[in-house]
Amino acid sequence: MLAITILGNNSALPAFDRHPTAQVVTLDEHLFLVDCGEGTQMQMAKYRIRRSRINHIFISHLHGDHYFGLIGLITSMGLLGREHDLHLFAPAPLREMIDLQLKVADTKLPFTLHFHPLNEEGIIAKEEKFRVSCFRVNHRIPCWGFRFDQIKAPRRINPELAVKHGVPAAFYDKLKWGEDYTTKEGLLIKNELVTIPSSKPLSYAYSADTCYTESIADKVKNVDILYHETTYLKDMEDRAAKRFHCTTVQAATIASKAAAKRLLIGHFSSKYEILHEFEREAREVFPNTDLALEGVSYRVF
Amino acid sequence: MLAITILGNNSALPAFDRHPTAQVVTLDEHLFLVDCGEGTQMQMAKYRIRRSRINHIFISHLHGDHYFGLIGLITSMGLLGREHDLHLFAPAPLREMIDLQLKVADTKLPFTLHFHPLNEEGIIAKEEKFRVSCFRVNHRIPCWGFRFDQIKAPRRINPELAVKHGVPAAFYDKLKWGEDYTTKEGLLIKNELVTIPSSKPLSYAYSADTCYTESIADKVKNVDILYHETTYLKDMEDRAAKRFHCTTVQAATIASKAAAKRLLIGHFSSKYEILHEFEREAREVFPNTDLALEGVSYRVF
Repeated sequence: MLAITILGNNSALPAFDRHPTAQVVTLDEHLFLVDCGEGTQMQMAKYRIRRSRINHIFISHLHGDHYFGLIGLITSMGLLGREHDLHLFAPAPLREMIDLQLKVADTKLPFTLHFHPLNEEGIIAKEEKFRVSCFRVNHRIPCWGFRFDQIKAPRRINPELAVKHGVPAAFYDKLKWGEDYTTKEGLLIKNELVTIPSSKPLSYAYSADTCYTESIADKVKNVDILYHETTYLKDMEDRAAKRFHCTTVQAATIASKAAAKRLLIGHFSSKYEILHEFEREAREVFPNTDLALEGVSYRVF
Repeated sequence: MLAITILGNNSALPAFDRHPTAQVVTLDEHLFLVDCGEGTQMQMAKYRIRRSRINHIFISHLHGDHYFGLIGLITSMGLLGREHDLHLFAPAPLREMIDLQLKVADTKLPFTLHFHPLNEEGIIAKEEKFRVSCFRVNHRIPCWGFRFDQIKAPRRINPELAVKHGVPAAFYDKLKWGEDYTTKEGLLIKNELVTIPSSKPLSYAYSADTCYTESIADKVKNVDILYHETTYLKDMEDRAAKRFHCTTVQAATIASKAAAKRLLIGHFSSKYEILHEFEREAREVFPNTDLALEGVSYRVF
């Protein structure tokens, strides 16, 4: 299962009750936080995302609307007694800032914060069921996109056959991941007997802040969901380029060239109170587009 | 006129929709921001306080719940095109942090930020109508309280006499501040003829985060409003002392010793969802106590 839960969809500063960028990527049982604008921990509380379930945080770049909420989130995790490790992937200078902020507060975190500076494109995190890689995008300061790939997709259970062979529902999660079941009587039920292989593993890409850059399409090829920034409507292409941002049409063009299955657009300029036009313009180029709205989870099974 | 508008009243981290510490002090036409926890700029938008009217910011100490919202507020002021000077009074290490955050974002503020490090007790800001001084309080890291004094209190207009002598309402603000009026016919109306001196100048003190420290009472003597932290109820006196915080009874005792006219209590621990007991306990010692509630302005004329 893949879900993208939007916590902030505005660019530069909060406006119209829209918050700076942050989103939670759920890939099976793993939760990843991608960017962390000011107020992210409040948004997590509002939308009932448990801070303790986040073990990996990815920061695309060091403009404040993408990371000013990070230090508050990290110190709150500490105040709440977190003990398990946290992995932070971010541009290198962020480490110095966090160290300084903890030092002046005379605070020692009760958990280990592993800082992974972003240096080159490629895989940055890998576990049994997922792989995360980063790629360069094109912004005013160094900026990174992230791609999340399910390595091992869960198998699909045939419930009739599972019931027929006496596999209890409590074992279904293990079934999904390929385990065989042994009945109380010692009878082995081979996994293949009650499940079928799933479709191909799911994938998600987050393009961060970028001007229109065709090569990004290769980096996010065939993803199930692509999030691409659309700071401006299509008539503002010049301003977008000058500020290293994109328009609706440019984001939709990247989605189309990448053969993405679905496009989410966000990072809306505070110039715009109403967002309908963003959806309309992007859909003209890439029909399967949705606005990234705060509090909404966009899911693929 | 003196008003304290509460933007955040919770300690350590946001909880129960309560925010970390921030408040706006209005003294006549001047707005001062005192502490600036994460989300302060959103709270200012919610309660319709214009960022551009803040010219002085005071940060008591460098625990995150008192300043993590500052960099977001400052950069938003810049993005909104602020051109007039901003004065920031804070512990010295904050300057390095702000400089680093602006540097990595490749951001130059379009206004002048005057950084005034807090070094010793005494007057730190003074203009025609107000004076602000700082005093040491007793916390785990260096921490400062602030006292705001009206220098020149506005005179009170006798509206019957003002009308009788032909002073137009548009001139009333100048009347308040002692100006004489000259009629169209060239007749001088002496200010004393239509106004009376006001009562004594107003004053407000903010005790920041502190353990129970009797000497604070001398620093905040006779203020019209005293804000004193009350992180805990009275049965938690030991824990309060250990963490350099205060209980309801301790805050009320300081207000009483200081002969303050009114007490505001805040900085409530996230242990407490319901706050009634704070009010009840403090009022047993100091009856004129109110809870510092977010979005409420506590006024004295």
